[in-house]
Amino acid sequence: MQLRHALFLSAALLSSTAAMAQFQKPEDAVKYRQSALFVMGQHFSRIGAMANGRVPFDAKAAQDNAAVVMAMSKLPWAGFTPNTENIKTKAKPELWMEMDKVKAAADKMMASAVALDAAAKTGNLDAVKKAFGDTAASCKACHDAYRE
Amino acid sequence: MQLRHALFLSAALLSSTAAMAQFQKPEDAVKYRQSALFVMGQHFSRIGAMANGRVPFDAKAAQDNAAVVMAMSKLPWAGFTPNTENIKTKAKPELWMEMDKVKAAADKMMASAVALDAAAKTGNLDAVKKAFGDTAASCKACHDAYRE
Repeated sequence: MQLRHALFLSAALLSSTAAMAQFQKPEDAVKYRQSALFVMGQHFSRIGAMANGRVPFDAKAAQDNAAVVMAMSKLPWAGFTPNTENIKTKAKPELWMEMDKVKAAADKMMASAVALDAAAKTGNLDAVKKAFGDTAASCKACHDAYRE
Repeated sequence: MQLRHALFLSAALLSSTAAMAQFQKPEDAVKYRQSALFVMGQHFSRIGAMANGRVPFDAKAAQDNAAVVMAMSKLPWAGFTPNTENIKTKAKPELWMEMDKVKAAADKMMASAVALDAAAKTGNLDAVKKAFGDTAASCKACHDAYRE
């Protein structure tokens, strides 16, 4: 168990080092994750407007937006590199101490975005509403725990 | 010719109105286009590092990055809505006066990103170098003309 834990940490560290190497400076990693989350949020909120009845349901628009949400959902996590911990953002200190939970939450979010994309492809509003709710809950869980 | 010009303007106006309606406020449109361009630029520069020999060629990484560049290349343009003209950004006044040329440049950029994606899928460094150069030229043309 001790060994498995050590192996997990090594793997996490390796992938973090690889992720850090992708950005020229820590500020780029912060801007990257914020940018990816903002773009994702814009497209996600357009599905929400339809799911909540604020705008008429447009199956094609829902499908297009869900495809972007799914593609964007994979990106932000690479920007949460340890060397950005001391840059002032809305990220709570807990985020850096619970990276295994953050990763699990990110995985859940990505899976819900895949399900949302599949639901949007059916063209069925009830399926979109359900999948939108599940995805929104996965966003909220992480924001409640790790965003000020 | 006069009529065709009028029709083109009407179509452009309609699509602009639709685009504006996607954003709650003009500032969101600006942040959206800047975010999408930043994310695209980060992934594009990673291909550039390989194309220019600053980092070893990794066919899988090139392919992954090119796929993100291609997906992102479709997004920024919706954020260039006329109601953002007076918000201070690096966009030159010329951009708002030459929207037909901007649109043509955006189309060229998107086409070059599709070609870059195809090149990356071949796993051939020379093909990636060529497609990277073409795409970089399409970025630069627009930046030179419309970005301060």
